Order: sequence, then structure tokens, then C-alpha cells
Amino acid sequence: MIDHLRDAIHGRGAGEQGPAAKLPLVTSNTLALAEPPSEPYVRIVPLGGCGEIGRNMTVIETNDDLVVVDCGLMFPDDEMYGVDIVINDFTYVRERAHKLRGLLVTHGHEDHIGGIPYFVREFPQIPIAATALTIALIKAKSREQKLGEVDFTLVKPGSRVRYGSVEAEFVHVNHSVAGACALALRTPVGTIFHTGDFKFDQTPIDGKPADFSRIAAIGDEGVLCMLSDSTNAERPGHTRSERAVGEAFTSIFSHAKGRIVVASFASNVPRIQQTVDHAVRFNRKVAFLGRSMRNVVHFASELGYLRVPADTMVRSEDIDGYPPERVVVMTTGSQGEPMSGLARMSVRDYKHFKIVPGDTVVISATPIPGNEKSVHKTINNLSKLGAIVIHGTDGRSHVSGHASQEELLLMLNLVRPEFFIPVHGEYRMLAAHAQLAIQTGVEPGNAFIVENGDVLEFTHEYGDKVGRTYGGNVFVDGSGIGDIGEAVLRDRKALSNDGIIMVVVAIDSEEARVIGGPDLISKGVFYLPEAGGVLDELRAELKTVLEGISVDAMRDVTAVKEHIRSELAGAVYNRTKRRPVVIPVVMEV
Amino acid sequence: MIDHLRDAIHGRGAGEQGPAAKLPLVTSNTLALAEPPSEPYVRIVPLGGCGEIGRNMTVIETNDDLVVVDCGLMFPDDEMYGVDIVINDFTYVRERAHKLRGLLVTHGHEDHIGGIPYFVREFPQIPIAATALTIALIKAKSREQKLGEVDFTLVKPGSRVRYGSVEAEFVHVNHSVAGACALALRTPVGTIFHTGDFKFDQTPIDGKPADFSRIAAIGDEGVLCMLSDSTNAERPGHTRSERAVGEAFTSIFSHAKGRIVVASFASNVPRIQQTVDHAVRFNRKVAFLGRSMRNVVHFASELGYLRVPADTMVRSEDIDGYPPERVVVMTTGSQGEPMSGLARMSVRDYKHFKIVPGDTVVISATPIPGNEKSVHKTINNLSKLGAIVIHGTDGRSHVSGHASQEELLLMLNLVRPEFFIPVHGEYRMLAAHAQLAIQTGVEPGNAFIVENGDVLEFTHEYGDKVGRTYGGNVFVDGSGIGDIGEAVLRDRKALSNDGIIMVVVAIDSEEARVIGGPDLISKGVFYLPEAGGVLDELRAELKTVLEGISVDAMRDVTAVKEHIRSELAGAVYNRTKRRPVVIPVVMEV
Repeated sequence: MIDHLRDAIHGRGAGEQGPAAKLPLVTSNTLALAEPPSEPYVRIVPLGGCGEIGRNMTVIETNDDLVVVDCGLMFPDDEMYGVDIVINDFTYVRERAHKLRGLLVTHGHEDHIGGIPYFVREFPQIPIAATALTIALIKAKSREQKLGEVDFTLVKPGSRVRYGSVEAEFVHVNHSVAGACALALRTPVGTIFHTGDFKFDQTPIDGKPADFSRIAAIGDEGVLCMLSDSTNAERPGHTRSERAVGEAFTSIFSHAKGRIVVASFASNVPRIQQTVDHAVRFNRKVAFLGRSMRNVVHFASELGYLRVPADTMVRSEDIDGYPPERVVVMTTGSQGEPMSGLARMSVRDYKHFKIVPGDTVVISATPIPGNEKSVHKTINNLSKLGAIVIHGTDGRSHVSGHASQEELLLMLNLVRPEFFIPVHGEYRMLAAHAQLAIQTGVEPGNAFIVENGDVLEFTHEYGDKVGRTYGGNVFVDGSGIGDIGEAVLRDRKALSNDGIIMVVVAIDSEEARVIGGPDLISKGVFYLPEAGGVLDELRAELKTVLEGISVDAMRDVTAVKEHIRSELAGAVYNRTKRRPVVIPVVMEV
Repeated sequence: MIDHLRDAIHGRGAGEQGPAAKLPLVTSNTLALAEPPSEPYVRIVPLGGCGEIGRNMTVIETNDDLVVVDCGLMFPDDEMYGVDIVINDFTYVRERAHKLRGLLVTHGHEDHIGGIPYFVREFPQIPIAATALTIALIKAKSREQKLGEVDFTLVKPGSRVRYGSVEAEFVHVNHSVAGACALALRTPVGTIFHTGDFKFDQTPIDGKPADFSRIAAIGDEGVLCMLSDSTNAERPGHTRSERAVGEAFTSIFSHAKGRIVVASFASNVPRIQQTVDHAVRFNRKVAFLGRSMRNVVHFASELGYLRVPADTMVRSEDIDGYPPERVVVMTTGSQGEPMSGLARMSVRDYKHFKIVPGDTVVISATPIPGNEKSVHKTINNLSKLGAIVIHGTDGRSHVSGHASQEELLLMLNLVRPEFFIPVHGEYRMLAAHAQLAIQTGVEPGNAFIVENGDVLEFTHEYGDKVGRTYGGNVFVDGSGIGDIGEAVLRDRKALSNDGIIMVVVAIDSEEARVIGGPDLISKGVFYLPEAGGVLDELRAELKTVLEGISVDAMRDVTAVKEHIRSELAGAVYNRTKRRPVVIPVVMEV
């Protein structure tokens, strides 16, 4: 589907051929993919996060070695019935497991680390390099998943890690979690610069703007290919500084007469720091509610990312001992997640904290697309309890963690890559980002809008897409990983739309006559008080149908089943205009 | 839940009692509701649209007469599995059908007219008063639903209609559909002013700002109670004029080199007019795609709401005869609705129009909460086809049809009602609107935040909430109206999460021994290639369980069923951590 646009961006017509077309295509079990060349090469394979928001993962492969950057998860959309989470297809890595040297993690958000427990289960020996808070967040996940020892390498911004022929340098950038890094990956063919998630915050809370000097120096050395965060590529201008949230908080804290509740992502350490700083300034105590929030506060404080004065923090059990105007509570639930602290408060289902009129609730986040309704529901419920609710969509009490167009342009101008791959975004964002790259001087033919599973290959001679591998969704449902597919989801969708009716008939297998039933059982089709009557009618109709079947016809069980199915489906549709799943069971006794 | 807030707004403590508490409460089949007084009264009963966006409907009832304002529908949310639409509970009207005199309709949007076919089916003689375009839109719906003759009364802004003791005056206001009116309802107790959906557009496309003079004059006469549109009550400032969209269109039309596609709601006549005007100005032809869009263009032109020069309009079949830079296409699908023109174009499923690179698509609307993902999907698909997509969220190519805070304040200051009921909005919007009313001088005790089904009563002496009637959702699924309830939806949800497994066993009813089965059938639980093996294992386990049941125990079919259910549920959970619905069927032969 994207070929014409690739061609448009590449500036060549449909008739022309790129270098890829000259390579021999082989059909392996990783779909159509050319054999790698014998000369030095590097392949870049995005397995997730391209054409979607979530499950970011990129493979970097040289002649002898393979490293992975990030391994995230994605939350299921409405059509993925019953799916818990979505992870990546590891086939490409699995088929090259002998070359796998390490996993590099840019930062500790779910869409970058959430797939790691599944990855480690398959590749238990893999070394993982990341900064301290990122490691702490991965460890928390691994503990939940009961994994054994994981081989972590602790890095700091500026650290370099070598995995075979690939050397990775971690470079400090700003983001809505502490310890976020970009990666400069030096390979035999050239340097690949992966921004991770980033923004350029000139006045960050921790006083550390992104390391412009290192990024510029890496750009000066020459960068073969850059992969860059496209989340906000459609937004003009500059993402506001985290400090802007501080201004909103100052105004909120000045005016609030009762308790203040701040909801944010647990991993948003800068936001936690701002809340703590305001608590200190306005002489309030802070309590952290919920396990994940308390975990992060614990790790982040221990690792020096967060400073909470000892006399400011109180336990949630002790809140009621303080007057309302002396209390701040931090909790999760900024996305309206049903089991989160805030959602439970909003329906008075939280033991340690009951919302009362006069409380001010600050939802310090914007809804991720798809979560709007649950966030609005939480806001409505909190309002009904009498809380004053200030939500991130007011544009003041939240700022994005991702670079807008001016920052993306600055990154492009600092790094000046020869090739460019926009990542982390839906198609429209990737397309907008590619246009920005072209504006800064990247050759139109060198900006690739990729889909998950596209294999890009670079040598000293060329760089282009050379084939595809598996880039699809792997659904995790319960303990099953990848064991449900589209067919199961289609079934669940059909069941959810109109329910199911089962018909059970027992026939004597020798005489081929009905000796039991038809019995009808329905679920999700009829209103209960009326279901009995309707089912009785339908049973009577089916009985007549069955009596009309000859003894010979009755011997063909498959045909009898189909006959029952179509008769019953028709009868239900005529009555209700509904199309439940109809399952006929003919039991031969 | 809202009582404390009502009290807070009413400015009285929990111990005090309003006038309502002095009235005798009777428990009728319309829940707890006081008998009406013998003195002249008017009751206002919102049946939908309060605490939600959609299915707006208000009952106005005097001693002898009852009129209804609007009768809308709501689209189901994600939790309403398989529900087609949601309408209102007509019980309150049904129980007072002898007093029902007429239905007044403010404008022709689905959330104000969508329930009318269901209402007319129950009350076929009811006269319906509305402006010409509104009637045309209701007729279109009625035809779809195959209703017979409907008794319409055509009104114009300024018209008055008398239904018994209630006289309604239609007052012109601006909105995103032509023919929108507010209503001044004169009753024996005083005037009720219902704004309908409105904005104050000082520079509307049709040159007719809202009738400030009549609204002010009605205010001067004295208004007992105002009901007002709360959709944008949280938005500061003023909603931009429809003309602002014209400026964005001028820029888009100046730059577009290929064809232009504009997607909007079919009923947005002002938007259609702007598109046509720009087509004329930039020397392009316009084609209207889709039945609903063509219908509206037809009605609106015939009724004088829309002016399309004859030589500007072309048929969709003829588009290809014109060069791309001479073509504009208008279509529906601004919400990403799967069967709409735009969504079908985005997946190349539209016979008469294929998107090609160079086309510019303008989505001239913002997503209704809950539709974000489908709109984004449409945008991504259109981008992949090479279209330049400009979407309403850019804040330029769309303006809201609803008044923001400054306009709501102006309306309050023009009408100066004694009592105030914010309507059309979620709780947080109603609460914000009540605050605005109090700021303009409405007594805090006279601003009511209501829920659907609340009954408010006004006499010359008092005004307050006196009880509740049925205000719940009525689900329409297929041809069934109100015949599925929460239990059915819960079943469908369970089915959609983890699927269903049925176990069928035939037992000899005399000897109480298993003579057939157990047979297992699953749907939506297991990945198909593996399902066979798992089901075989589960069947073997169940067989062992059944063999362990004594002959005596086997005679208790209910206990056997429960035994099978729990064994199988346990076995499935241990294997997969999933909890499908398990249905045991024991057939006695």
C-alpha cells in the first residue's frame, strides 16, 4: 500500500528500480527476504511501533552480530476481544538467535520494556543494558512475571557498551520519565542514531537539558541513518517545558482550599518531583497511593532521580490525621484504568482515601487515544463526589514528553543523517516526520516510511528496503502467548454482537431417529424473563423440522447439523433481526 | 450521589429540607414520585441527555397537558455489546398518554430526532412541530423505518404553536445544522425557555445571527426556568464563527493542486454551503457522494437553506471527466464510521471514487469522544493512499456548533431565568454550566444539576425536584426495543472476553449412566490448529471425572452439571489462565 508513497518520496517513478530489486529474492520462512550480502552490512528491522503507537522494538544486525533496541508492549484495541496485551513477533530474532548479543533499552516506559519478560523467557542469557531507573522498572516487571536472574549492565549517559561489532553510546535526552537516552550505535558500515522517545526541554526539572554537545559531535562524526520519535510529528512548534506544568501547579496549589490529588503515570518522575516540590513550598504532606506509584518513588529516590524530604512524605493510612489544606496525594489512574487508584477513588472503592467535596483533583496527563471515554467517566464520577477536577486537556497541567516539529527539525539538523527512518507513530505521523527530514536536506529517496517487519539494508554502497519479515501482532491472553489469532477474535466479536444459541439433539446411531432433544440453550441473545417462551417456540419449530427429515437423510450428521443451523438462524432472525452464533450438536448414542 | 452537590449548590446543609420534602411521596410504578398539586403547576422531566451526550428529550407537563421537546438517540458505547442504538424510556409519557398533546423538535440532529420513529410507533397520532429542514430530516428517518403518515406542523422562526395550555414560540438560533430553534414555552405557571443546541455566530454563513431581539424580549417578559445546552460549558471564551472555517477552506483551496474531498456530517448545511461557495470561487465542480449527503442537499436546496448553482453540481459518475484541479467531492464519514463514504474511500472500497496521490482530504469535524481511533485509522489509510489529509483537530477546518462559556453567559444574561437546568452534557459539563448560571445571578438554590428521570415541579409558590421516574437506557438491538437488558450485555461481555465451551453428555435416564459424550465444542477460546489437541485432553479428563460419579449422584442432573462446569472451568484455567463461559448440557435419553 505504501509503495507509491515510498516512490513519491524516493523521487522515482514506478518503472525505475532501486538497488533492492537487483538482489536475489528468496522465499524463506521469514517471508520474501534477500540473502544478506557478503560485504559488510547493517540491517535495521523495526518489529513494532511503525504504523502504530506502542510495542517499540528495532533489530540492528551486522554480518556477525545482532542487537535489539527496546522491546515494548501495546495495549489491545476494542476489536481485540479479551486480549490482555500485544507484543512483537520475535521470529526474525529467533531465526538468528546465534547472532543475538544484547538488548539495549532507551527508557522505562511500557511501550519500550513491556515485552522484555516475554523476550527474556525465550532468550534467557541475553544481556540487557540500560540506565538505573530503567533497570529498576524492568526488574519490577520481571518480578511480577517471576523470571529468574536477568543479566543487566548498568549504564549512565555517556557510557558505551560493546556487543560484538556494535558499540552503543548512551546519550542523555529529556522525556516524561527519568533516565531516558538516545543511542549512537557504531557499526562496521557506519553510525546509526536512534533517538528513543525524546523532547528538548530547555528548562527541565532536573536541570539537565538533553546533551546537545554529544549529539552535535556524533552528527559531526557522520551518521549513516537516524531513527527518530514521530509521536508529535504533526504538531507545529515546540513542546512546552515540564516547568510549564509547575506554573499551573503553583496556581492550583495557591487556590486549593482542601486536599489535592495529583494523578499521573507512575513512571513520570519529573511530575512526581514537581508535586513534591509544590507540597514542600505550600507546606503540605505528600502520600503516595498504590503499589506502582510507591515502587517508583522508592526506586527513583534510592537511585537519586527523585528528592523527597523525609518529613514531607506520610503514609496513606495517616492522611486523615492532617487538615485537608495540608495534604497532597499522588496516585495512578490518569488514563481512567478501571483498577487504578483514581478510578477506584471515583467510585468510592478505595479504602485509604475517600473523595469529599472540596478536594481538588489534578489529572496530570492527556488521554491516550481510545481512553477518552474512561477518562471522562472518571472525571464525571469525581465531579459527582464534589471534587473540583482539573484535567490535562486544559493544556496547562500536563505537557507532552515527545518532541514537536521544531525539536524534530533541530534533532535532524544536529545529527544530519544520510538516511532517515521515522519510528514510533501511526502512518500519518511517520509521513509528516519524513517530510520534515526532507526539509532539512535528507534526500527524498533516503527517507523511508516503513511498516513493522520491513527489512532495511545498508552497505558502503547502498541503503534500501530489501524485504520483509514477520512484523505482526502477537496476542497475550491469560498465560497463552501467540496462541490466539484473528479467527479466535472474529469468533469473540460474533459472540459479543448477538450471543450464541446451542441446539442439542441425540439420535440413535443405529436407527437414525431422534431420541433426545432438541434442547436449546442461549447466552447473550434474549432478555431473560422472555427467553423461556421464545426458546419453547423455537424448540417446537425445530421439532417439526426434525420430524420432517427422512431416516436416510438423518444418517448424514453433517447435513442434519447444517439443516438445524440454518433453520434456527432463520427463525431467530425473523423474530429478532439478530444473528447469534448457532451451534448445532448432534450426539449419536 | 449528586445530593451533596445539589445541597452545596442550593446553599443549604444536609439537615435542612427543601419544599419537596414536605410533599407526600407515593411509590407508584414510576418510582418514588409525589402526586402533582391541585394548584397550577408545570413539571419538567428530562428523560435523556442529562449526564450524557445524546438522546436528548424533555417532558413539559401542566395540570392538563403534556408536550415533549425533542426525542433523540444515543450511539452505544463499547460496553453495550451488539446494541444498535440507545433510546429513551417512554414510561412517564406512556402513563400520561391521555395528556400528550404534541412533540416539539428544536433541530434535525440524530441526538434530537433519532428516537422519533420509535416514539411515533407508540403514539401514532402525535402532532410534531418543527422547521422545514428538521421535518425533512425526520421524514427521511421515518421512511427508513417504514412509518405511515406523520402529523407534521411546519413552523418558521417566530411561529407559535399551541398544545392545550402550552404555547411554544420558535426562536432562531445558530447551530451546525440549518433550521435550529430555541423554544419559549408559555405555561399557566410561567415561561420555560429551552435553548436547544445553539451557538451565537455573529457572522454566520446564511447572514442570520440568532434572534437576540426576541430572546431579550422573552427575557424581559420574565422567564420561570431556562434549560440550556451544556456541551461546551467547560470551554472558556467564544466558539469561533462558521466563517472561520471559510478562511481555512480558502487557504486549502488556494494550495490544493489535485482533487479536494470534504467530509462532514450530512446535516451540516452551513458546511456544505461553504464548500459549494469555495468551489464556485475556485472554479471547481462539486459532486455529492452517498445517499444521506445527496438527500440533505436535495431537501435543503428545495427548502431554500442551501444555494448550489446548477452548473456547479456534477454527478459522481461524471467526476472523472474533469481535471483533478477542477473537482470537489463532498461525502460523509467525518467520524470514521465503517460504512461511510470516506471510510470506504480510505480502503478503496468505493466504486465511484478512488483516492489517488495528490488528492487533498479535509475532515471537517472533530471526533466525538469514542470515535478517535476509527477517525485516526481512516486518516492513516488515506495517507497511505497518498492523500494529503487535513483534519478538524488542527483547529482550523472545523468549528463547534455549540456555545462556549461567553455565549452561555450571554444567553443567561439575556433570558435572566429564575430557575436554571443545564441540559445536554455529561455531569462535569452540567456542573460547570450551573456555576456559570450562578455567576450571572441565578440563586444557587435555583440551579438544578439533574439526572435523567428527575422530576422537577414548579408552581407559583415553589420550584424543586419532587421525585424520579424511569430515565434509563432502552437498547435497540435488531428489531427488539428494550428486550435486552444488562444481563444480556453481561453475558455478551463474558463471551467476548474469553469465548465459550460447551460440554454435552447424554445419560440414560433410567439407568443413570453416560451413554454419549462428553462432547466438547469451543468458540473463541483456542487457536484453531491447536484446539483439537487441547479439547481431546480436556475430554479425556472429563471422562475420568464422569466415571467417578456414582449412579445415585448421577440422578441429580443439576449437581452433575455443576460438577462438570467447575471441573472443566478449572482445567481450562490451569492450562490457559482464561475463564471462558462453560455451558454443560446433560441430555436425558
